[in-house]
Amino acid sequence: VKYLEIDNLDDLAEAICSLRVRGAPAIGVAAALGAALASYQFEGRDTKDLIVHVEKACGVLGSTRPTAVNLFWAIDKIREVLEQEHLEVGPLRQKIIDCALKIAREDELINKKMGELGAELIKDGQNILTHCNAGSLATAYFGTALGVVRSAHLQGKKIHVYVDETRPLLQGARLTAWEMAQEGIPATLITDNMAGFLMAQGKIDLVIVGADRIAANGDVANKIGTYSLAVLADAHSIPFYVAAPISTIDFSLKDGSEIPIEERSREEVTHIGGVKIAADDVDVYNPAFDITPNKYITAIITERGIAKAPFSESLMNLAKEESQI
Amino acid sequence: VKYLEIDNLDDLAEAICSLRVRGAPAIGVAAALGAALASYQFEGRDTKDLIVHVEKACGVLGSTRPTAVNLFWAIDKIREVLEQEHLEVGPLRQKIIDCALKIAREDELINKKMGELGAELIKDGQNILTHCNAGSLATAYFGTALGVVRSAHLQGKKIHVYVDETRPLLQGARLTAWEMAQEGIPATLITDNMAGFLMAQGKIDLVIVGADRIAANGDVANKIGTYSLAVLADAHSIPFYVAAPISTIDFSLKDGSEIPIEERSREEVTHIGGVKIAADDVDVYNPAFDITPNKYITAIITERGIAKAPFSESLMNLAKEESQI
Repeated sequence: VKYLEIDNLDDLAEAICSLRVRGAPAIGVAAALGAALASYQFEGRDTKDLIVHVEKACGVLGSTRPTAVNLFWAIDKIREVLEQEHLEVGPLRQKIIDCALKIAREDELINKKMGELGAELIKDGQNILTHCNAGSLATAYFGTALGVVRSAHLQGKKIHVYVDETRPLLQGARLTAWEMAQEGIPATLITDNMAGFLMAQGKIDLVIVGADRIAANGDVANKIGTYSLAVLADAHSIPFYVAAPISTIDFSLKDGSEIPIEERSREEVTHIGGVKIAADDVDVYNPAFDITPNKYITAIITERGIAKAPFSESLMNLAKEESQI
Repeated sequence: VKYLEIDNLDDLAEAICSLRVRGAPAIGVAAALGAALASYQFEGRDTKDLIVHVEKACGVLGSTRPTAVNLFWAIDKIREVLEQEHLEVGPLRQKIIDCALKIAREDELINKKMGELGAELIKDGQNILTHCNAGSLATAYFGTALGVVRSAHLQGKKIHVYVDETRPLLQGARLTAWEMAQEGIPATLITDNMAGFLMAQGKIDLVIVGADRIAANGDVANKIGTYSLAVLADAHSIPFYVAAPISTIDFSLKDGSEIPIEERSREEVTHIGGVKIAADDVDVYNPAFDITPNKYITAIITERGIAKAPFSESLMNLAKEESQI
């Protein structure tokens, strides 16, 4: 365990690009705090200059990663604050900082609410499969998919988690397995390609994952491998749940085909921890995410309630509700 | 590339256990050569002692790995030779060595025949997905699934191969990717969990894999992850082919549930090349193989022809045919 103290925008942008900060909600929080950092470090006396300065920071932060919509959602929140051009530098700066801290604080509350609601879907004694890391290490605290798992555990339900290692970057093996150990939740690590065989053996009762972006119709972009799991869960009649805050839903996109999919470097596949693990010079395809069509999703768990098909309606209805956070 | 010269039985058994020799046909060939080595090194003058000596070697070799049936098939071939108790030590020894060399030589011929027959299923311009390594490095030479791919390539068909890296031991990334480069066959490496997303994008025209054991009804044991691929191929209406010699079919087993599945060490999942890649002390489940039910298999390619459903009949009919090798 290593904590990074980051005190300048370039290092923060690098931390997001290189996945030192990762997980859609955590990226959103980090971007907001990055804008706050920029305003905090602004040394001029003119409001317009402050706005230009923070706007520039938002541009840098917004170009770090393309898929997780929480990044753009958080930047938009900051931009709303920047509209208050009538304020002096001091008060505007304070409003930007307050906005960022509110995003960070609320993320934890949202996750706890999501956990409470989602835990109703988990029964005592069940075996849960999860992919990648949608836990405390992907959020401000508590997690989305793992927040639901954690809540079920805190309610005293005896659960067991199968953790997909999640190639190429092994967020399951490194992060989720670690979080489960911290919480004392029984967990077993598997390679991603074992999931289907476990389902065939009746070892999985439900699948739960997070999301990087959800289109208006409920199609879900999430870590590569999620789609395969959803198809496999469907073939074995196993419920497939997605846990994500309302801020992950991008109502501007009709369906998943409009979600941009980040492709990352070949070295993520050919090397692990600096060790080469593949034949020389082989071509690599490395999409970081995939799209799971809504038909494979049993329910989407949000902090405002649990959405089921038809998702175009249920997600919009939840979005219209007054936030309780 | 590193060649191992092995001149004693213990080293050979270790080489099989630790997967220096791997791939069902190659294991069979190695076991036969191991028995030949034992008979070659026998220093006594009594036929009964030679038989006991070679029988003991067969016992050691037979206990190395439980799933690939070619191992037991090859040992049985040697045991048939051992029945000739009336022979002197010299001639019996020679028959054992001849039997082993015949198994090795025929494996190549079988693979070439299988390749010729199977290549008919591959059309010009197609994209092929394969899992693990069923190539020259898994056989005496030429390969089973990759033999089919190689034959299509040699026929001048423009094909492209997606190579599943195949966790935990990365036979795809290390071996198949290397073989494709040697042959000049265009190939792209992916992580196992990308296969479904590629299928959804229309990037895969067919899947072809090898087999470690096939039950009488056509259920197939193969490298872990094969079952997930088969279910995914089915969901996307993509043909799923298995290429394996007749010796891989175990007619003594009614269906796949009777095939023993080897479980291997946790370190295969938690470490790569000596580097720890998972959280401390996490539990691991590491089955080396899975079972793909016959309903997911479009055809089984053998050296005697291509079997289709109902496999109980088609496989038995092929087994009854006179071998052309």
